[in-house]
Amino acid sequence: MADRPAPLAHLDHLGDATRFSPQIHALIPRCDLLENFSAAEVRLLAHFMDVYQAPAGTEIIREGDSGDFMLMLIEGRVEVLKRDRWKVPQMIAQVDAGKTLGEMSMIDGEARFATCVAAEPTVLGVLDRENLARIIVEQPMLGAKILMQLVLMLSQRLRSTSSRLLEMMDEQSHRATNIL
Amino acid sequence: MADRPAPLAHLDHLGDATRFSPQIHALIPRCDLLENFSAAEVRLLAHFMDVYQAPAGTEIIREGDSGDFMLMLIEGRVEVLKRDRWKVPQMIAQVDAGKTLGEMSMIDGEARFATCVAAEPTVLGVLDRENLARIIVEQPMLGAKILMQLVLMLSQRLRSTSSRLLEMMDEQSHRATNIL
Repeated sequence: MADRPAPLAHLDHLGDATRFSPQIHALIPRCDLLENFSAAEVRLLAHFMDVYQAPAGTEIIREGDSGDFMLMLIEGRVEVLKRDRWKVPQMIAQVDAGKTLGEMSMIDGEARFATCVAAEPTVLGVLDRENLARIIVEQPMLGAKILMQLVLMLSQRLRSTSSRLLEMMDEQSHRATNIL
Repeated sequence: MADRPAPLAHLDHLGDATRFSPQIHALIPRCDLLENFSAAEVRLLAHFMDVYQAPAGTEIIREGDSGDFMLMLIEGRVEVLKRDRWKVPQMIAQVDAGKTLGEMSMIDGEARFATCVAAEPTVLGVLDRENLARIIVEQPMLGAKILMQLVLMLSQRLRSTSSRLLEMMDEQSHRATNIL
């Protein structure tokens, strides 16, 4: 197994995710990433993931930091915060078990878009880029399945974000027209 | 080769993309999808793509239609239009050779987000979901490379769209505070 990500050094490491496979498998109905995964595929994936534990209030990911791993929330709840124009953190989402976080930085290696804080005692599965690359080489069909699900999840988020943005631009130009 | 997509039946089919490989390879510096592709990988991918020709003014993709293929613009220019709240098409982007369009529907099979119209005589490479699935099975490393690039492209678009949306929400709440 590769070195563990340094930004997670402050969390309690519970070992690789193999012994959490049944719990991860039970998350399938709530987990977009694992949609259509079999129990065998979950076990295989778990072998490439590490599990960490974070008490309530722990900052897990910090906006602006670099980071090349994604998180799967196995237990607990996480708040997602982004700094507004005055650099004040504003909560933009709350995330429950089964959800994944940080996929964008795992893939593109760019700075974290938002901060994630454990809102209650939380157990996290971690997949980093190095292990994703190993999966692609050692288990290409599993690798393709994970990548396909990531594309699907990002497509759906991009559709809904783009729609909201266009609606908002539309409203704004409508408002501008009414004022003029 | 699988049946050609019905929504492209009105376009002039120029055969599979193999003989366009040198032209596609020359697009690499302008093509996010093909970043880091070798000439051999481009040739391999071209074998799974079809090429079509569209005169200026041709509607290539229609917003709301179903469709399971993506386009790579090999020559020409395409306008991307989305209907506003009054159902009037508004141009939201102009796209040149090297750019790809329609990735989201290829992957999630959902309705087209926007309409694409050839702004000048245009040559298009088409990759449909069935051929993407064949690549993943027959050429897993090429499949992983394509999927990885798609995840990267969607991540970057999602980052910039989310930032613009949050900025706009921020401005709006600022404006609301100033009015109250």
